[in-house]
Amino acid sequence: MSPLRDGFVVWFTGLSGAGKSTIAARLEVALRQHAVAVYSVDGDEIRRGLNRDLGYTDEDRVESIRRISELARILVSAGLVVIVAAISPFAEGRQRARSLFAEGAFIEVHVDTPLEVAEARDTKGLYRAAREGRLLNFTGIDSPYEAPTSPEVRVGVQHSPEAAVADIVGALVSRGLLGPS
Amino acid sequence: MSPLRDGFVVWFTGLSGAGKSTIAARLEVALRQHAVAVYSVDGDEIRRGLNRDLGYTDEDRVESIRRISELARILVSAGLVVIVAAISPFAEGRQRARSLFAEGAFIEVHVDTPLEVAEARDTKGLYRAAREGRLLNFTGIDSPYEAPTSPEVRVGVQHSPEAAVADIVGALVSRGLLGPS
Repeated sequence: MSPLRDGFVVWFTGLSGAGKSTIAARLEVALRQHAVAVYSVDGDEIRRGLNRDLGYTDEDRVESIRRISELARILVSAGLVVIVAAISPFAEGRQRARSLFAEGAFIEVHVDTPLEVAEARDTKGLYRAAREGRLLNFTGIDSPYEAPTSPEVRVGVQHSPEAAVADIVGALVSRGLLGPS
Repeated sequence: MSPLRDGFVVWFTGLSGAGKSTIAARLEVALRQHAVAVYSVDGDEIRRGLNRDLGYTDEDRVESIRRISELARILVSAGLVVIVAAISPFAEGRQRARSLFAEGAFIEVHVDTPLEVAEARDTKGLYRAAREGRLLNFTGIDSPYEAPTSPEVRVGVQHSPEAAVADIVGALVSRGLLGPS
């Protein structure tokens, strides 16, 4: 199977609590307003189905991202624009995901929220559990996060979700993946 | 996640060489003529991507069908009608697949080609290899095939592919899944 020419994927990577899902949900709405058929793949949600058998060891994280990549490829080949929100901590796994798509059809978005900020939010209480040793292999605490060196888009804490979506949509338009609104 | 209400899956089961992929390809054309957005999932093709890490032991076959089921569920939730063609030899795995969809949205089609006929065709030379012991865990030879007892549709060697598709389309129309053409 050769890389695909139609469709594209917007791949959000970042720490737990960085804001990936929040921005992804707003991007989904924005893309629908462009009359694009979109499908969102959330790493946490996939862990309740396709990836139910996987845990959080390095090996399982690699396999989780491999499956999400293949799923995204299938969804793109079905004619959809795909949004992925997954910590995807390892650069190699993200690179392998990118290699499944045509040149220019993989838009990596680094939600570059510092650990201190994500940990201070701790909406799910996971950082606290990880700090207390009740939760093992937690990204940023006792499992590494390899930040992308050259993502197509980087959004930081200075961005509101609206501003982040505007930047991403701008990047899609400037690459010819989306028509101007 | 609760079972889905929209969309449906046509799930082909049967021996290797039974004719699943042939009939599935023609069904795909027929459904497109009904202006339905269709996506086909072929078990062999998935083994080159999502299921690349799996072999043919009982355990791996179970996992293969589990992943294909979850994939079909995702594709249906993306608004597609999904055709699956996979040996899917175990009744329990097919039952588990069915349980992911709304009542009436899982159409099991047994391509009921007898072993002798499939083996005589042997288009890929796999039966010969299995008989000679060069290929292990081959369904129908040294790995079981549990035929469905009450599939929604059963097609046999007396059916041409065209007749098989006509029967399946008829079953979809009579269940209200497809409008009359």
